[in-house]
Amino acid sequence: MTIYNPGPQIAQAGAITLGTPDLEKSLGFFRDLLGMEVVYETADVAYLRGYMELTHHSLILRRSDEAVVDAYSFRVKRPEDVELFYNELRAQEIEAIELPAGHEVGRGEALRFIWPGAGHPLELYYGIDKPLAPEEIRSHLPSNSSKRRGLGVRRIDHFNVQCAPGDMNAAEKWVRETLGFKRREFIHIPESQTLLASWMSVTPQVHDLALVANPFEKSGQLHHVAFNLENFSDLMTAADVLKDHDVQFDVGPGKHGIGQALYLYVRDPGSGHRVELYAGGYLIFDPDWEAIEWTPNTVGDGLTWYGDPLQMGPDNSMAPTTNSAPLHSLAALRA
Amino acid sequence: MTIYNPGPQIAQAGAITLGTPDLEKSLGFFRDLLGMEVVYETADVAYLRGYMELTHHSLILRRSDEAVVDAYSFRVKRPEDVELFYNELRAQEIEAIELPAGHEVGRGEALRFIWPGAGHPLELYYGIDKPLAPEEIRSHLPSNSSKRRGLGVRRIDHFNVQCAPGDMNAAEKWVRETLGFKRREFIHIPESQTLLASWMSVTPQVHDLALVANPFEKSGQLHHVAFNLENFSDLMTAADVLKDHDVQFDVGPGKHGIGQALYLYVRDPGSGHRVELYAGGYLIFDPDWEAIEWTPNTVGDGLTWYGDPLQMGPDNSMAPTTNSAPLHSLAALRA
Amino acid sequence: MTIYNPGPQIAQAGAITLGTPDLEKSLGFFRDLLGMEVVYETADVAYLRGYMELTHHSLILRRSDEAVVDAYSFRVKRPEDVELFYNELRAQEIEAIELPAGHEVGRGEALRFIWPGAGHPLELYYGIDKPLAPEEIRSHLPSNSSKRRGLGVRRIDHFNVQCAPGDMNAAEKWVRETLGFKRREFIHIPESQTLLASWMSVTPQVHDLALVANPFEKSGQLHHVAFNLENFSDLMTAADVLKDHDVQFDVGPGKHGIGQALYLYVRDPGSGHRVELYAGGYLIFDPDWEAIEWTPNTVGDGLTWYGDPLQMGPDNSMAPTTNSAPLHSLAALRA
Amino acid sequence: MTIYNPGPQIAQAGAITLGTPDLEKSLGFFRDLLGMEVVYETADVAYLRGYMELTHHSLILRRSDEAVVDAYSFRVKRPEDVELFYNELRAQEIEAIELPAGHEVGRGEALRFIWPGAGHPLELYYGIDKPLAPEEIRSHLPSNSSKRRGLGVRRIDHFNVQCAPGDMNAAEKWVRETLGFKRREFIHIPESQTLLASWMSVTPQVHDLALVANPFEKSGQLHHVAFNLENFSDLMTAADVLKDHDVQFDVGPGKHGIGQALYLYVRDPGSGHRVELYAGGYLIFDPDWEAIEWTPNTVGDGLTWYGDPLQMGPDNSMAPTTNSAPLHSLAALRA
Repeated sequence: MTIYNPGPQIAQAGAITLGTPDLEKSLGFFRDLLGMEVVYETADVAYLRGYMELTHHSLILRRSDEAVVDAYSFRVKRPEDVELFYNELRAQEIEAIELPAGHEVGRGEALRFIWPGAGHPLELYYGIDKPLAPEEIRSHLPSNSSKRRGLGVRRIDHFNVQCAPGDMNAAEKWVRETLGFKRREFIHIPESQTLLASWMSVTPQVHDLALVANPFEKSGQLHHVAFNLENFSDLMTAADVLKDHDVQFDVGPGKHGIGQALYLYVRDPGSGHRVELYAGGYLIFDPDWEAIEWTPNTVGDGLTWYGDPLQMGPDNSMAPTTNSAPLHSLAALRA
Repeated sequence: MTIYNPGPQIAQAGAITLGTPDLEKSLGFFRDLLGMEVVYETADVAYLRGYMELTHHSLILRRSDEAVVDAYSFRVKRPEDVELFYNELRAQEIEAIELPAGHEVGRGEALRFIWPGAGHPLELYYGIDKPLAPEEIRSHLPSNSSKRRGLGVRRIDHFNVQCAPGDMNAAEKWVRETLGFKRREFIHIPESQTLLASWMSVTPQVHDLALVANPFEKSGQLHHVAFNLENFSDLMTAADVLKDHDVQFDVGPGKHGIGQALYLYVRDPGSGHRVELYAGGYLIFDPDWEAIEWTPNTVGDGLTWYGDPLQMGPDNSMAPTTNSAPLHSLAALRA
Repeated sequence: MTIYNPGPQIAQAGAITLGTPDLEKSLGFFRDLLGMEVVYETADVAYLRGYMELTHHSLILRRSDEAVVDAYSFRVKRPEDVELFYNELRAQEIEAIELPAGHEVGRGEALRFIWPGAGHPLELYYGIDKPLAPEEIRSHLPSNSSKRRGLGVRRIDHFNVQCAPGDMNAAEKWVRETLGFKRREFIHIPESQTLLASWMSVTPQVHDLALVANPFEKSGQLHHVAFNLENFSDLMTAADVLKDHDVQFDVGPGKHGIGQALYLYVRDPGSGHRVELYAGGYLIFDPDWEAIEWTPNTVGDGLTWYGDPLQMGPDNSMAPTTNSAPLHSLAALRA
Repeated sequence: MTIYNPGPQIAQAGAITLGTPDLEKSLGFFRDLLGMEVVYETADVAYLRGYMELTHHSLILRRSDEAVVDAYSFRVKRPEDVELFYNELRAQEIEAIELPAGHEVGRGEALRFIWPGAGHPLELYYGIDKPLAPEEIRSHLPSNSSKRRGLGVRRIDHFNVQCAPGDMNAAEKWVRETLGFKRREFIHIPESQTLLASWMSVTPQVHDLALVANPFEKSGQLHHVAFNLENFSDLMTAADVLKDHDVQFDVGPGKHGIGQALYLYVRDPGSGHRVELYAGGYLIFDPDWEAIEWTPNTVGDGLTWYGDPLQMGPDNSMAPTTNSAPLHSLAALRA
């Protein structure tokens, strides 16, 4: 019998850092409409979390000329995993920047590097504070950090990022093999085995991270970041209220066949970053889950099982518009 | 840096085997009302699964004079984990019966033993078939085994079992240390550290398994088995329909503060086993989750945050009525 | 002070009679999927009602070569109103056929005539039986005729019919002035005052009857008949299940701005008649309600506030496909 | 054929005026938590409406030492109905006070009198302004006065008031015969025909007004005023949030068999008046509806079909606590 050593592991999608040209409008969206708590704030940055998140933050909004994504941050399972991943990256000759504790307020030491092939800046960390919310909004339920407010965003859910079609297979393989993501559902061209999209997770969620081929042949573009709502009804209420507040709708509401969750894609009015509100879906507990295969011919139901139809490719409504930041610009920016 | 070896691990609560004095009535409940699929059936036994379960079964109904629970079955993460657990039990001098592949239809080799202190028959297995549903009920969504029917039971959710108050601390410690369950929320008497209830999981669910002190000082009694519905609205519909079909309600609908899910406790009309319909709730992705502590003075909101109130102790509505089977009777029974 | 005499009045949209080339398939849809009760049945006809309807039927399915609508039937408020309406029609020199009690099983005397301009066969009746459902499906709630089943159709909701654009203004005026419908919301071309659509009711519902301009310049075509579900969540469940049963979707789910209800337009697989599942919406209690005006430029939000977008005009998805029957063919048919 | 003259008619339950000892706390509840719009405000009074009400107000909060109900106000169907009702009251030798236009801001002339037997101050009016909401909260949907906010109160729904058991039969008969309410469901003691509760309406709602026997043998006590939410899910969200804000729960959530709506009874923190949040239910379009009869032996399911159980009688949770104001005190107060 072989001894099983899982090596370092990712625990969850932890946080995203969004550059926004209009911080006030972005706060109006995430804080006032979606109901997220501002945990820490300066003139140029705000840290937020959903009412079900006990950790310090899952969203950082940073005033910025460009609507860029500074970092997609994942929490690792054990304190030593940050260093174990660092060793692994060095062994692969991938440049990684060590960020000291406090580089993000409330967070311990972290590692920053560019996802090979995909071009997205990833960060890995373990330590994170779990501050109590101010008493006036603190929940009586200890599993909630604060009372439900606004449209009831509970927590961050997942990231969906893009890379050039030609880099898909390699980039997806890398993140599975090095970071331990499991492929859950995917679209490919069977003849060529060319991957068009892959939904991957380290948790029983169908995806904590998705990689999708970019219709403009570019890497390093955000498709969307998703936040989780309790149920379908909350998502319909969100659609009602966001529509009435002139928030731009891209697509939705509708139900994905892939993941079986309800979706609504809108734009943060301050930055134009695409945000998905996401509710429901199935969980994977099978240890021998076989990734579900879709092809361009069959994926219609996978993208949209019912509701406002989502399409692949460069249609106006779902074209990516915001970019991930390159590694060195980030290092310079936040040093 | 230490090498981390997780040892054998549980993947999920997989299935329960219920003895029922009236198999037809039990089928009327689980198949016709709740909408579960009968995957395999003889005159005296039926294997069922929810529409989101790809594996062979999560519920076995066995014709029996007594409304007993034959087994609480957990799936392990890797094929070798069955043997690794067997070795561990032997090292602890706990009797374990090896069950050959096919002992349960569609299932590989398994291990059966009694949970020390708690008195409940547990089974561990890895291999399980994933049969397609018959074409007329097969879903177009490959993540569903069949089309949604009846009240929309998606999958098994968790087991809640009881033991004598004096055995709580030891029994709970054993299942955490040997089987790897993590304590997520608990009730205890702070002065004496006496545990009254513990919600534990190996997945991000708040509990795959709960252990609750038995008000009649007995071990080996079922509190309930829970099945999962998509959302709160489905649970209200279930309440409507089950009430109109004269299914006995114990408590609910209401919302637990513990776990934050909606509950409805009813009785299988064929056996009297208590079944919880369960929807919503929060997921735990924090690797350093600190178990939430409740005391008899504070747990009111934990048991019922709102809705029909659940009480601890031997009140009529929630008194346990059905027993788990002792190990040797089971071995004899099914040999 | 003048004495106020309301004259004869319509109480509600009572029933629709649909010709269907495949009665068995239509029953599979309305009875087995939507969950309606078959109250009366012969080899060639079936009478159905929703679980919240105490009256004998709201839907008649009649075996027929052509997918025609035989009648849109409205119940009047008082027994004498049938005769009062008859007198009014004669005064207007509109031909009306008197149908004896029992012409439709369970129904009293009725009046049949063609809606001038619109070309649709309308029937007016007062008397209708209120049979108890068979005991095995009878509800314990006396306001329900039967236990909720299938997708939970509660009752008929409204009719939406079409006429040639050039007849819209006159046809709509006639039904308001003679039958007492109130205009609640409408679309017109302000410059020419040309009506494109009108939602009208005799109850606090936003519409019991809608008249919409036909994109093919024809009168006498059905747009859809709507059945009512309890809430948004039920409609999403219906979408899930109908999609998985290969029922043809036209448009939806989505939310109308007009009426503020959730919609899902599908086709009866037996006949191709368009059926709307309809949930929620607002009620009008204001006695001085001013009809809400929409124009081609503003009506986008009115047709679809959010969700799968509904469009006006001859697009494939919403083109009318089934016709209302002419008066004399009906008289001959059912004499 | 007899000519049918309906005489003056009530159109709807229009508004309630609540005295509150703590106006700020009451505003915190109705405006900030429930999400109602303050249309008009002085230091001592606030006029509010739900987001689906186009008329000026449905709730007046008046600073007052005592938590009294000043008026239950009904809108009539036609302008002349105010005077017609006045004549009718005089013919019955019932004192009625004429209130000039503007007595309530935004309202036309009204009539105030005490409901004989029941002891509650009723007001009848026709004219009411329909002001647009301020632009920043105005809805894009013309059938909504403002964007949905807070817990989404849409509109006032109904009044439930009490009188001494010995006065029930006469008081209920009076309001039916003089004001035209129809009995929809009722509880009585069959042997003595003693009425215990009656749900009555002038609209298709099951009740716009309910009269319930007071367990303390008193007349003139409020049981509750109800506000309407879109659906069951909104009511569950309201329960979640109100609980977390320490609003006192009396009973609920649960579903009434009578009316089939979901209920949640809480107390306005400023005044202690009981408020019901109310969602769903059935509508009555049958012109020959037969009132549904319940008895003390059968009404259990009627009061609570499922959920937190509602009981009749002087149990602590549902005992009435606030009084309606006598006629002359009101006249003096507001002259």
